[in-house]
Amino acid sequence: MNETYTAAFYRGNRTFTIERQPMSNPKSGEVLIQVSYCGICGTDMHAFHGNMDERIGFERIIGHEMSGTVVAIGKDCNNIEPGNKVVVRPLDHCSNCPACHAGLSHICHKLKILGLDSHGAMQEFWKVPAHTVHLLPDDIQMDLAAMIEPLAVACHDVRLSELKKGEDVLVIGGGPIGALVALMAREAGGKVVISEINPHRTAVLEKLEFDIINPSERDLVVEMNERTSGKGIDVVFEVSGSQAGVDAMTAVAATRARLVLVAIHAVKPKVDLFQFFWRELELMGVRVYEPEDYEMAIDIITNGKVDVGSLITDVRSLSEIQLAFEDLDQNPSAMKTLITMGN
Amino acid sequence: MNETYTAAFYRGNRTFTIERQPMSNPKSGEVLIQVSYCGICGTDMHAFHGNMDERIGFERIIGHEMSGTVVAIGKDCNNIEPGNKVVVRPLDHCSNCPACHAGLSHICHKLKILGLDSHGAMQEFWKVPAHTVHLLPDDIQMDLAAMIEPLAVACHDVRLSELKKGEDVLVIGGGPIGALVALMAREAGGKVVISEINPHRTAVLEKLEFDIINPSERDLVVEMNERTSGKGIDVVFEVSGSQAGVDAMTAVAATRARLVLVAIHAVKPKVDLFQFFWRELELMGVRVYEPEDYEMAIDIITNGKVDVGSLITDVRSLSEIQLAFEDLDQNPSAMKTLITMGN
Repeated sequence: MNETYTAAFYRGNRTFTIERQPMSNPKSGEVLIQVSYCGICGTDMHAFHGNMDERIGFERIIGHEMSGTVVAIGKDCNNIEPGNKVVVRPLDHCSNCPACHAGLSHICHKLKILGLDSHGAMQEFWKVPAHTVHLLPDDIQMDLAAMIEPLAVACHDVRLSELKKGEDVLVIGGGPIGALVALMAREAGGKVVISEINPHRTAVLEKLEFDIINPSERDLVVEMNERTSGKGIDVVFEVSGSQAGVDAMTAVAATRARLVLVAIHAVKPKVDLFQFFWRELELMGVRVYEPEDYEMAIDIITNGKVDVGSLITDVRSLSEIQLAFEDLDQNPSAMKTLITMGN
Repeated sequence: MNETYTAAFYRGNRTFTIERQPMSNPKSGEVLIQVSYCGICGTDMHAFHGNMDERIGFERIIGHEMSGTVVAIGKDCNNIEPGNKVVVRPLDHCSNCPACHAGLSHICHKLKILGLDSHGAMQEFWKVPAHTVHLLPDDIQMDLAAMIEPLAVACHDVRLSELKKGEDVLVIGGGPIGALVALMAREAGGKVVISEINPHRTAVLEKLEFDIINPSERDLVVEMNERTSGKGIDVVFEVSGSQAGVDAMTAVAATRARLVLVAIHAVKPKVDLFQFFWRELELMGVRVYEPEDYEMAIDIITNGKVDVGSLITDVRSLSEIQLAFEDLDQNPSAMKTLITMGN
């Protein structure tokens, strides 16, 4: 094992520094992973923009959409061995709050997220608690495996929606998460339409053979009513985080539709609650994933059930992380950028 | 049978006229009912205020919270006989829209409500479609039976909430429907708190031994957190129709709480959608009732399982209908006023 390795630190002011770090052995309950790939998430962009400075500080290695290989384990890391290909479910819960007691540790009242509240995967080697590790089959493609974390979000969202085969689905917002939700909704048997205005994203989604509507060109509500003979949409995923998206989700909804709130709305939008009463609509907030969502995402990627590879529009080396973030920020054509650690 | 009978017509401008109507026999599929009691609903007050003039016009007999006895039937009124005590589920659906096809005729896209879109029960005799009639046991109290319609609303709301025994419940708004929801939630085993500011309503609710918080005097969120050791409320019924109620429903909610939207929000309020994401909350719109809710309400009142009688704060004769509406409008002390037809 080398004595030092490379890591990227977020230093505030939209700046990363690449630094050498001393290697150290994992403690009890810890797993040391050699990172292969780490995707850049919307949350990472949010951090890059300085919106999370108070939470993450200026000495933070971010990143949580990763794949890698175990190189060493501490004591009490049952069922994990050096050489295992793995992904990390980057949630550290308190075990002691009402949510944890209710078996919902993924929405722990004091949830810590690896890569935000502690160091993440934008480094060659990463030490994580053993309970966050999921094993992968040996023959998995490691670039695709870095998509397991965002795919697990989509698995969670579609699972909680209880989407049934043949139902009409609208995904509002076709970014990386919206695209993955659309892929999983189609995999579950839904008839999926995506609402997206960005032509670069639309091009990627068209390659995946999705039915896409640009709501700035066509009337989304009229289109959805026409496609469903006036019934409306059974399951709507709101992934846009916009007032327009919130307006659309109630306007297109069928009787007793499920509206799945995937986006984070930092500002309180106005919501057409009359429509909730009128058509007995259901709105469900969904957040991250549970272990079973990870297992489903691993199965989906292992068996090539959906084409997540088409969403990877850029791969950069760790030394280029600064440029990778700047390009994503300035160039809205990218869907998903992976950072490769060269392993 | 008399040749004429008395009916109250809404004539616009907060005015009813009492008029004699010619008696006529029921047609095929129709049931003629001698009305015993008819409660004044919030919707009736809305009509009285002129807010529904466009829909109901100025020749309308309103009223739909009734009890009565069948006096005659047309052809094809199976299982209904003269002498039967009955209530009417005042919903007339189209049988032909996507909601009706999905078995959800209570939220039919073209739903007509008896007492608004056609004549209602503020008259001595009322003709209704046979499919709207529910039979009552002979020994039921007819004043209490007039509470079956609003109680069925509460049965529907609590049933769809899937409230489990021991769960913490908050009812925001303790008017007639809020009180009935609270009674049914307690009957289902919930630990119920009611938020209400009107001291007259509070007095009625105290007689029913409810735990009541006046949110203008105490901090509702702090109180709810204290009562639940930081867990929050499992099931919230929003019955206030106010922005304050909408703010409170998300603020008090436990992880994966169900928020049941009973109130009609004519104006779009701002909703804290971040909290939906953060705690995976669920919001469900609920509207009127299904036949099984009526059957449950009939059972509850027949067997005296909850004390709906305490909510009846006034009983007036049909000739006093104008005064009854004016008193309800000007005097916020009343909970539920029944009009008796003297039968």
